[in-house]
Amino acid sequence: MQPDLLQQLFINPNNGSAANADEITKIVSIAEAFAHTTRITTDADLEALMQDFQVSKIPDGTMDFASYLNYLNQHVIPHSVNTSSPRFMGHMTSALPRFVSSLGMLITAMNQNVVKVETSKAMTLYERQALAMMHRLVYDFSDDFYAEHIQHSDSTLGIMVSGGTLANIAALWCARNSSLGPQPGFAGVEKEGLAAALNFYGYKGAVIVGSRLMHYSFKKAADLLGIGVNSLVGVPVDENNRIDLNALRETLSDCRARNLHIIAVVGIAGTTDCGSIDPLAEMAEIAREANVHFHVDAAWGGPVLFSERHREKLLGIEQADSVTIDGHKQLYLPLGRGMVLLRDPRAAREIEKHAYYIVRPNSFDLGKRTIEGSRPNTSMMYHAALNIIGRRGYEFLIDEGIRKAKYMADAIRARSEFELLVEPQLNIVNYRFVPAGLRNRSDDTAESSLNDINKRLQKAQRQAGESFVSRTTLHLARHGVERRITALRAVLANPLTTEADIDAVLNEQIYLAADSLTRPHSS
Amino acid sequence: MQPDLLQQLFINPNNGSAANADEITKIVSIAEAFAHTTRITTDADLEALMQDFQVSKIPDGTMDFASYLNYLNQHVIPHSVNTSSPRFMGHMTSALPRFVSSLGMLITAMNQNVVKVETSKAMTLYERQALAMMHRLVYDFSDDFYAEHIQHSDSTLGIMVSGGTLANIAALWCARNSSLGPQPGFAGVEKEGLAAALNFYGYKGAVIVGSRLMHYSFKKAADLLGIGVNSLVGVPVDENNRIDLNALRETLSDCRARNLHIIAVVGIAGTTDCGSIDPLAEMAEIAREANVHFHVDAAWGGPVLFSERHREKLLGIEQADSVTIDGHKQLYLPLGRGMVLLRDPRAAREIEKHAYYIVRPNSFDLGKRTIEGSRPNTSMMYHAALNIIGRRGYEFLIDEGIRKAKYMADAIRARSEFELLVEPQLNIVNYRFVPAGLRNRSDDTAESSLNDINKRLQKAQRQAGESFVSRTTLHLARHGVERRITALRAVLANPLTTEADIDAVLNEQIYLAADSLTRPHSS
Repeated sequence: MQPDLLQQLFINPNNGSAANADEITKIVSIAEAFAHTTRITTDADLEALMQDFQVSKIPDGTMDFASYLNYLNQHVIPHSVNTSSPRFMGHMTSALPRFVSSLGMLITAMNQNVVKVETSKAMTLYERQALAMMHRLVYDFSDDFYAEHIQHSDSTLGIMVSGGTLANIAALWCARNSSLGPQPGFAGVEKEGLAAALNFYGYKGAVIVGSRLMHYSFKKAADLLGIGVNSLVGVPVDENNRIDLNALRETLSDCRARNLHIIAVVGIAGTTDCGSIDPLAEMAEIAREANVHFHVDAAWGGPVLFSERHREKLLGIEQADSVTIDGHKQLYLPLGRGMVLLRDPRAAREIEKHAYYIVRPNSFDLGKRTIEGSRPNTSMMYHAALNIIGRRGYEFLIDEGIRKAKYMADAIRARSEFELLVEPQLNIVNYRFVPAGLRNRSDDTAESSLNDINKRLQKAQRQAGESFVSRTTLHLARHGVERRITALRAVLANPLTTEADIDAVLNEQIYLAADSLTRPHSS
Repeated sequence: MQPDLLQQLFINPNNGSAANADEITKIVSIAEAFAHTTRITTDADLEALMQDFQVSKIPDGTMDFASYLNYLNQHVIPHSVNTSSPRFMGHMTSALPRFVSSLGMLITAMNQNVVKVETSKAMTLYERQALAMMHRLVYDFSDDFYAEHIQHSDSTLGIMVSGGTLANIAALWCARNSSLGPQPGFAGVEKEGLAAALNFYGYKGAVIVGSRLMHYSFKKAADLLGIGVNSLVGVPVDENNRIDLNALRETLSDCRARNLHIIAVVGIAGTTDCGSIDPLAEMAEIAREANVHFHVDAAWGGPVLFSERHREKLLGIEQADSVTIDGHKQLYLPLGRGMVLLRDPRAAREIEKHAYYIVRPNSFDLGKRTIEGSRPNTSMMYHAALNIIGRRGYEFLIDEGIRKAKYMADAIRARSEFELLVEPQLNIVNYRFVPAGLRNRSDDTAESSLNDINKRLQKAQRQAGESFVSRTTLHLARHGVERRITALRAVLANPLTTEADIDAVLNEQIYLAADSLTRPHSS
């Protein structure tokens, strides 16, 4: 490498040279063009695209950034997915507030490492503040409580992580370590491990209990934490996809009877499938009576707390020992942002780790009590958004999503081609296409055909690239028989999505169904 | 919230309105001013700064972005840490290539979710390509190997994660699940848990073995995975801080004798303290003979493979079953970027998880075999940097860091005020300040004074804010006695750091020592 190329690569000229400004202008125009594409993606087939991503050798020489941007812009970006499109309503992405792109640049440029004070200083305090603001949204403790804990290094109001999966894992890690902690003659599960802990406490095994609609990250948690996926106990749900409280009580006493340690009871505030919310207040009471950690996975639904009208749906969340919330879902932030909030500011002490070079015992370093180590300053997005959008702004966004989901449910009911599968509690709509010939039938053959038709319809729409909904499998009672039903799934969280967009997505499905479903199976 | 404010927040005007351009100009100027501050940070005390971060209530109303930026620029950014300063040589941060800030904006704006194809499409293939390029850097298998695996959904050449801690955890997770996998009559540790696995296989416990200089993330891994921190076995090191191979052999046979299952042997390619590299080839052989997973933590040292001159230091890494590399360390990328590379493309199958709504068994979704769930497209930074900087560019950067470390070691030896504590193998230098009165003494009192003096010196330098080295505690033999020695620790990875900067940092220490160390202890 030439020294001058090194200069060019690493030195930001003091005068903001033209090259730099050109690059930024180019990036902004690429990002804007991408956001304004009317299509979701090209109709290029994934298999065909693979041919463009076969090189495994790192080039010897250098490439200038402008050439690389041209490569990206020609071969990669057009075949990416416009997750912010008003007609991309299949997953938990949305248009983002404009300011986040600029902040993304600032976070990258400042490159603070919030694992420790020495590489972040004020940003450590700033992250603690953002966590306290979110903590207060959920728990709303007294001014005195926050004055005591917000900047106290013994206190951990929450743990920032890269996403909800790690948040759930971190919460259950705290729960496992607290509930199988040190005792006279035993150094605790953290030091001695799970087998020794079960042996010391006299348990035959350990379980995590929640509705069978728990997110798949709980499988990862059960596996990682050493209890095994089979010890993740999925309790049946009622017809509204909420945990069956009697079944939960029975499960807990069954576990007790079988001498199984219950690490946590998990409540869900917004299932991934259909957005249903467990009866959290009742679950909190059951968990408290059983003296078990109560975790609420509110990765999706947490921000509903901003809505005066809908927040009662989450009643009981304030009794949870830990709560997962994802910034990149209904806080409208870019990906890479999750957190777990902790009711007891000392709960994370059970996972604390130290080293000589950083996170020393007396330090103020955040990295003492996190699952990740070195971390970017993701809290800037939270802190900014909470201030810029504010409570009333978020309330408006939440209320709008729920209103639009109701609109879509009505639009589905109004079209004989569709069947609404679940009455939406929040802003996720599950439905399916039903051709005329299969309406009012409930036999196995018809159900099997419907599943097949809806799978093909979802694929055809995705492939066409004009709009997008996702699909899932629901277990629904039909005429007294539980069936696995393939559902189309729409997530209504994008502020740019209009009622006309919703109609267009449904009408495209009717059109695609008529067009393709009459063709042979292989189409 | 007013609908027009919503528009303003979420809609990127097609014509790239002035407001947007203004914002970006403002951000660029803030980022440039920050990067060009000569100081590392202000001399404001952390305790005093806390007063500025006490608000825990989320405001009701909205705030415009320009006002928020002003707040950031006045109250937060100046008190952050200029981790890219040429005189910030205390931690594993550096100046970054200029293009990463622009890419940071693009990644944020595109908001691809690489957990699944439906929210990333080409970006899934692109991430697989970036992983293959890094895999080839380490393993350099045949063209045929890469042609087969690079875009094959059954193959996992590596797992992208937010950082090295998760990479190490993911590697050991794979190792644990593979080595205690399903057998006739047993569904495997993944399903049945650790206690059942130990019971089925007839082990009394399970351990992870590596040198006692393993990064603290291995404590997290041992805790999380359920074996307990006490089952992380730290083997002694030789005078060069490399694992003692005889002690390793003894430890392994001792574990066997005690009927303990060895999940993995961990080699270190660049200890955090002093950059020492374990004898990887010999360790690989020992692990192979013992039929144990061999993991190499090359979070820091991995990119030394780019250097024709120094890569032999890592000989044996290509025999590792898994290798951790951090993009945000010596690949000069911003924080939030780690990966584990897997020798066997099927190894990650042991941690595979599914759900109805995504990562279905037959899908091409990357999220099937990762520790995180929804994830940002962090691979763009890798892919871009590998192409833009290239092998020769990285080689130059690596060689320069090692050359400068040698310069610093010589500069320390040339100054009677300092003692070089460890001969640097890579680019990390450990040394200490020794006042004239304490030279050539080795009694307890002198050693204790030296530790205290160096602690105070490091703090004084950090507080002054002009330059920065970190500190750690080394266990070094001194006249036949092992002592805990407080070391100053410099990391020479910043391409902008000159020999003059190195001299300036040392001279400032001499100045600060003369100035402050003569004052009473409380200073």
